[in-house]
Amino acid sequence: MSNPFFTNKGPFKISEILTTLNLKDNKSFKDQEILDIKDLLSATDKDITFFHSKKYKDYVKKTKACICITSENLKNELPENCKSLIVSNVLLSTAKITKKFYPESINDHYDKSVKRIEDVNFENEIQYGKNILLGQNVSFGKNCSIGHNVIIEKNVSIGNDCSIGSNVVIRNSVIKNNVKILDNCVIGKHGFGFFPNKNSNFRYPHIGYVIIEDNCEIGCGSTIDRGSMSNTVIGDNTYLDNQIHIAHNVKIGSNSIIAGQVGIAGSTIIGDNVKIGGQAGISGHLKIGNNVEIGGGSGVINDIPNNSKVMGYPAKNIREFLKENR
Amino acid sequence: MSNPFFTNKGPFKISEILTTLNLKDNKSFKDQEILDIKDLLSATDKDITFFHSKKYKDYVKKTKACICITSENLKNELPENCKSLIVSNVLLSTAKITKKFYPESINDHYDKSVKRIEDVNFENEIQYGKNILLGQNVSFGKNCSIGHNVIIEKNVSIGNDCSIGSNVVIRNSVIKNNVKILDNCVIGKHGFGFFPNKNSNFRYPHIGYVIIEDNCEIGCGSTIDRGSMSNTVIGDNTYLDNQIHIAHNVKIGSNSIIAGQVGIAGSTIIGDNVKIGGQAGISGHLKIGNNVEIGGGSGVINDIPNNSKVMGYPAKNIREFLKENR
Amino acid sequence: MSNPFFTNKGPFKISEILTTLNLKDNKSFKDQEILDIKDLLSATDKDITFFHSKKYKDYVKKTKACICITSENLKNELPENCKSLIVSNVLLSTAKITKKFYPESINDHYDKSVKRIEDVNFENEIQYGKNILLGQNVSFGKNCSIGHNVIIEKNVSIGNDCSIGSNVVIRNSVIKNNVKILDNCVIGKHGFGFFPNKNSNFRYPHIGYVIIEDNCEIGCGSTIDRGSMSNTVIGDNTYLDNQIHIAHNVKIGSNSIIAGQVGIAGSTIIGDNVKIGGQAGISGHLKIGNNVEIGGGSGVINDIPNNSKVMGYPAKNIREFLKENR
Repeated sequence: MSNPFFTNKGPFKISEILTTLNLKDNKSFKDQEILDIKDLLSATDKDITFFHSKKYKDYVKKTKACICITSENLKNELPENCKSLIVSNVLLSTAKITKKFYPESINDHYDKSVKRIEDVNFENEIQYGKNILLGQNVSFGKNCSIGHNVIIEKNVSIGNDCSIGSNVVIRNSVIKNNVKILDNCVIGKHGFGFFPNKNSNFRYPHIGYVIIEDNCEIGCGSTIDRGSMSNTVIGDNTYLDNQIHIAHNVKIGSNSIIAGQVGIAGSTIIGDNVKIGGQAGISGHLKIGNNVEIGGGSGVINDIPNNSKVMGYPAKNIREFLKENR
Repeated sequence: MSNPFFTNKGPFKISEILTTLNLKDNKSFKDQEILDIKDLLSATDKDITFFHSKKYKDYVKKTKACICITSENLKNELPENCKSLIVSNVLLSTAKITKKFYPESINDHYDKSVKRIEDVNFENEIQYGKNILLGQNVSFGKNCSIGHNVIIEKNVSIGNDCSIGSNVVIRNSVIKNNVKILDNCVIGKHGFGFFPNKNSNFRYPHIGYVIIEDNCEIGCGSTIDRGSMSNTVIGDNTYLDNQIHIAHNVKIGSNSIIAGQVGIAGSTIIGDNVKIGGQAGISGHLKIGNNVEIGGGSGVINDIPNNSKVMGYPAKNIREFLKENR
Repeated sequence: MSNPFFTNKGPFKISEILTTLNLKDNKSFKDQEILDIKDLLSATDKDITFFHSKKYKDYVKKTKACICITSENLKNELPENCKSLIVSNVLLSTAKITKKFYPESINDHYDKSVKRIEDVNFENEIQYGKNILLGQNVSFGKNCSIGHNVIIEKNVSIGNDCSIGSNVVIRNSVIKNNVKILDNCVIGKHGFGFFPNKNSNFRYPHIGYVIIEDNCEIGCGSTIDRGSMSNTVIGDNTYLDNQIHIAHNVKIGSNSIIAGQVGIAGSTIIGDNVKIGGQAGISGHLKIGNNVEIGGGSGVINDIPNNSKVMGYPAKNIREFLKENR
């Protein structure tokens, strides 16, 4: 599937890609055109992909990509159909090539395409307040209401029966049906991802988006960042309280309840029916199972299996925590 | 006292109330009209009330309500004047009946009644910025100033000498005199209360409001939710720093000082002259005494008596905490 | 250097200063004019200064000020050129005199001087969205872009290549080059500083400002308060994630990375190349060295030397923390 939101500036010839990475063509690549950059499993034989960690070696064997950004010590894992581009920093090089294909995914400057809502035609009737701006490629289902001073920048799809509060900013997001977003939220901003660099950091491209499934509520002043290569997802009927921060690539399951001021760091995956108490923090790249309960104020730094109750910093079995702290 | 802000859609006949709860009239209720739903002590003999926990058994004996939503094992506590409506989930049934009386207390869709401030007449002169919207039933005392892009939705009373920052949203609130609310606050939103339900949660009605007493300051980006059955109260001369979250039904005393990013969960009651350090979190339904000091970063999960100094997670005596962590 | 942003209402005669502090002239001061109030080292022989702690006794010996607010037990440290004004509470008296010189530094009522951006002339071309307000003494470098509903109140200097998101409020700040401020930030508000007082607290004047150096990024919904006597500074190429709170007088070095929901209390100084994990909190008046790493969720209550890695609450050596919590 092509990216629904960010414009692909490709195709690019392999020679152009090599130039971007300051590499020489020491493999006599046929100078074929590369259509897109995708992850190992999504890539077609006209795409470039990347492989930076042994964790993904089962995937790399299945990739259809014709070319792969990787490192010297991983190159032998690649299948025959896929030539390697050896670099010293796979993720940085991947970021540079992603930026080449999707230059608009780096910086979220304000959307110059917006128009006043009064100047836009809709298929469905909407109820709306004052001073609302809509960008290109914004659509609404039936029976939506939009508060005052809302800015919906380009690339937003909103379903039926949604209610958007005032002062909300949304971009690059898919909001499904019967979703309620309360005042002062910012949804779909690029994530906090970059490669540190002395004079000026190199920002990571964010070509993913935010998906908020049916029947969710997002509390006031919350921020949900869009994904880098994958998407940030809030599952069905999951409720977020005020001042919550959901970082890029996080995926939360359905029927979960997340209390005020919780923060979830990048790429963490959270199951269904999870309850998270106020001010709890969850580190990045973790897996939290289904039916998990996390006590308020906890700091979670390890995966948590299904059906567990944890509390503490670092979070542990809640009984143990309470016993130790009686 | 009748609710000053939410319109009571009653009276309703008892038969209508039974229907809403899917109950049969197996007690041959006289089909009298019920005027309102109130707590045990406020209810008159024309009101319905609710009783869900033995904690309130002293109150139930004094209730004047003619009918009470309760459970099988609590029904015998009711006085003679008060008939029981036996349900399996008292709070859920109470929520349903409250919603019946006050349907507008469930969802805070944007206020369609707002007008530009230039189109509203006031008794007192106000200084105001650009792009300000005011709903119905909004009043100001003398010598107030209101920043840019402020939205004061319906049902807000503001006293003398108040200063409202920019981008603030207020609804269903009573702001007394000489109160300062800084930029980007959201005051008076419904609380984070609902009954979990697989396909779509049932939101709890919030018919309380926010009261901010004289001489308070509320820092930038703070959120103060209104109460469900009671009110959320910030006492005289209490100062809140930036990014603070005060949940529904919380009551804070006077002369208290609350540092940045503190979160106070629902229904907790905090005394006078309390100092709370930055990022501390306080669980719901607790009682924090007068002259209490809570160290920054603490997680309070138990009541705290007057004149105590606590720190830690869970919070304990501060000397003990510092000694253990030297 | 005179204060670039706040108007000095002086000079004042010493007799007026004595009256403000309810002091009698028992030293037969010549009634000379005092031009300004400054710290010990900045003061000239026409300024008043203050000395409240032995910590600064090396500085006091070098002061050129002709008069100094101090206490009975510190007065003998003053050099001959500097007469003492003895008070019971040095900081409160200093606040009162600072307020006398800079009355506009106390309360940040909305800026009445703002105009719509369309009505302002610039030297450089700017790209800007809808509904933008600019106060007096606001300047931009080349190639800036400003989002929708932005309010830049008086006294803001913005350099080249800056990008300001939507719904941002800025005042009393110097933003250098290539800085990116994301949606819903509030920059330059007065800090959370006041003297508690039963009926109505006495707010501390904030005559400092916020300086954001080149190449910084400030995440959505962050708040950065301006300094009281000194400035709040974010160093070169330092990136802040969403929902961060930086209190007054904090100074952060260059090339630092601060993850979501971190809070840094007043007057703390942070070095270069520092990494702070999500939700960490740092107490006030601390010194955090260069190349320090602070784990997510930590509560830092002591100084941290260069090149340390810490975690926990209170934060300690990270290996120790992880070992103890295995």
